[in-house]
Amino acid sequence: MDFKKIANQYKDELLNNVIPFWLENSQDKEYGGYFTCLDRKGNVFDTDKFVWLQGREIWLFSMLYNNVAKKQEWLDCAIQGAEFMKKYGHDGNLNWYFSLDRKGNPLVEPYNIFSYTFATMAFGQLSIATGNKEYADIAKKTFDIVLSKVDNPKGKWNKIYPGTRDLKTFALPMILCNLALEIEPLLDPEFMQKTIDNCIHEVMDVFRRPELGGIIVENVLVDGNKLSDSMDGRLVNPGHSIEAMWFIMDLGKRLNRPELIEQAKDTALIMAEYGWDKEYDGIFYFKDRNGHPTQQLEWDQKLWWVHIETLIAMLKGYQLTGDKKCLEWFERVHDYVWSHFKDSEYPEWFGYLNRRGEVLLPLKGGKWKGCFHVPRGLYQCWQVLESLSNK
Amino acid sequence: MDFKKIANQYKDELLNNVIPFWLENSQDKEYGGYFTCLDRKGNVFDTDKFVWLQGREIWLFSMLYNNVAKKQEWLDCAIQGAEFMKKYGHDGNLNWYFSLDRKGNPLVEPYNIFSYTFATMAFGQLSIATGNKEYADIAKKTFDIVLSKVDNPKGKWNKIYPGTRDLKTFALPMILCNLALEIEPLLDPEFMQKTIDNCIHEVMDVFRRPELGGIIVENVLVDGNKLSDSMDGRLVNPGHSIEAMWFIMDLGKRLNRPELIEQAKDTALIMAEYGWDKEYDGIFYFKDRNGHPTQQLEWDQKLWWVHIETLIAMLKGYQLTGDKKCLEWFERVHDYVWSHFKDSEYPEWFGYLNRRGEVLLPLKGGKWKGCFHVPRGLYQCWQVLESLSNK
Repeated sequence: MDFKKIANQYKDELLNNVIPFWLENSQDKEYGGYFTCLDRKGNVFDTDKFVWLQGREIWLFSMLYNNVAKKQEWLDCAIQGAEFMKKYGHDGNLNWYFSLDRKGNPLVEPYNIFSYTFATMAFGQLSIATGNKEYADIAKKTFDIVLSKVDNPKGKWNKIYPGTRDLKTFALPMILCNLALEIEPLLDPEFMQKTIDNCIHEVMDVFRRPELGGIIVENVLVDGNKLSDSMDGRLVNPGHSIEAMWFIMDLGKRLNRPELIEQAKDTALIMAEYGWDKEYDGIFYFKDRNGHPTQQLEWDQKLWWVHIETLIAMLKGYQLTGDKKCLEWFERVHDYVWSHFKDSEYPEWFGYLNRRGEVLLPLKGGKWKGCFHVPRGLYQCWQVLESLSNK
Repeated sequence: MDFKKIANQYKDELLNNVIPFWLENSQDKEYGGYFTCLDRKGNVFDTDKFVWLQGREIWLFSMLYNNVAKKQEWLDCAIQGAEFMKKYGHDGNLNWYFSLDRKGNPLVEPYNIFSYTFATMAFGQLSIATGNKEYADIAKKTFDIVLSKVDNPKGKWNKIYPGTRDLKTFALPMILCNLALEIEPLLDPEFMQKTIDNCIHEVMDVFRRPELGGIIVENVLVDGNKLSDSMDGRLVNPGHSIEAMWFIMDLGKRLNRPELIEQAKDTALIMAEYGWDKEYDGIFYFKDRNGHPTQQLEWDQKLWWVHIETLIAMLKGYQLTGDKKCLEWFERVHDYVWSHFKDSEYPEWFGYLNRRGEVLLPLKGGKWKGCFHVPRGLYQCWQVLESLSNK
């Protein structure tokens, strides 16, 4: 495998295709913030602003500024989004709404904790880029709120009747694994260590289930961390687990724990195998661990982020452990991604394919797809491939 | 068209295939109530009990008992479900939970108003079958609660921030159109008339939009009944609208308003044409009225209820107006339904097909598919076809 050549392919796609697409099409020059509902050509088809995606785009441009090049237009793009978010994204007490209209009026209440986690990432990364104390303060305070909400993330909007079947969800410790490293400079080291240890334990010892062949489940019972034989309790989201595994590998590297990296790499391989569609290729969105029908009607669709996160996990797995199976998986998914998600006629990538790999929705951005997984994935793969090519 | 022959096809499928399937497989003989998560062969794959579907199955067996034959096993089936619902389905004040575990412990809070509407239908129809005053009382009181919730159906679980973009949804007046006729004997005539007039006005004069060629939209702004250029405001659900049109035709017949019937028939034809997939046949689940990508990933799937409700609407449209286009649509959808949704190997029908008409989930019942649309549709079609054959 010609690592240098492929590194350049990812770098070029990032810097000359995907980033210009978002810089040019997503910025709302009139009201600030970002449009994310962009059609195949980049035209805005809806002006609502989703707080997850506002935070993620701020983060992405700040991260590029911090790690790739000190381009003023990247920093300006991040700052204008952050100023919009600072003013309109929350209720005055850093309770982050889910969505806003174009002008910043709140549309959906702050019920979703991932609005908070991505705000934390955004303001944390931007505070590094700018040295702005106010941004750092927003990140730190929002992170504290996230931690205070761990036991009931949806708060008063939680529809689960308490006591009958109390589940906890994989998404939260999984995101915290990533977030802790993101805002490490802002945290007290001892507190940081405790938070990370707890997240690693939850992800690898609670949601990862050796009795099921080492797959990761999306929900377990709070009481005793036991499996639940219910729709939520049987749910498996292979892409989600694989994404978490590269977060864990990053932590393993940071903490110098090779056994943790090895376990994460093995789990990523298990989940890729588990999620792969042997009939039409690609990785399924959802599966039921007992093979029952899922409640998610979109279970068989092929989503961009699932595949892009798999590319990252496999490259990191190979880089950190040398396991050739990771490289084989990278090549397989690389071929699928570039022949299915990349749009050969217009910039940026498709997000939603049907089981056969045909385009289901021709959008380049929407309510859930913004300036995040594609450019982050291209950046991460570029970096790892570059370092492999220098070996 | 041989109405008698086709009437018998629907009757036979109802009485000798679908009803035995639910009688045999769905009743929980140990704890009461109904299982609805049934695989292709009728085996239970999940024991949770969904209050919508409990109510709908009580209604269906009561309705058959009232209208088809005084079979004791039908009445027993309805009564055992109702006793389970009476005991476990609500919080003691007729606030109906969304779901319960097998034993009846609440799982999801009473956030969903359709748990209430189907409880009303269930206890109303069963009170007619049994003459039981307590059942009638539950139906009437629950109906009053439904009406009291019209302005904020989700109550404290509503995540919409008030004042920015207040929408109202088609589903509620649409269901009330049907519900009012269902429990007419329990209501004060004047109150009933007012409720019905209001629902007809909402459905036909607010959600039906002549400026869009007469299609029905799923959401409009509360303020001024105006269209909203947002994801929710652009949403069209053809099956939903078509189902509503046979409710309106029933009301038109009851109220002796031929012009209303004519308008409902025309609207059903418009929506069938609008929703039809010209490439793969079948009716789409969702569309965006401006042709933008929907937020619903399942937009292109073919759902059983959409097609079955269309059969009913087209037959009633033909019966009440003589419009031959209705008969053509009936034949087209009849062919699609019997060749795609009917399972030729095992009883009951598939519910979820992909765009190509291939089975997406092999279940016969689940969280949303219970003993309702298939048997109600078979019953309704049988009745109309039978009456057409006697002309």
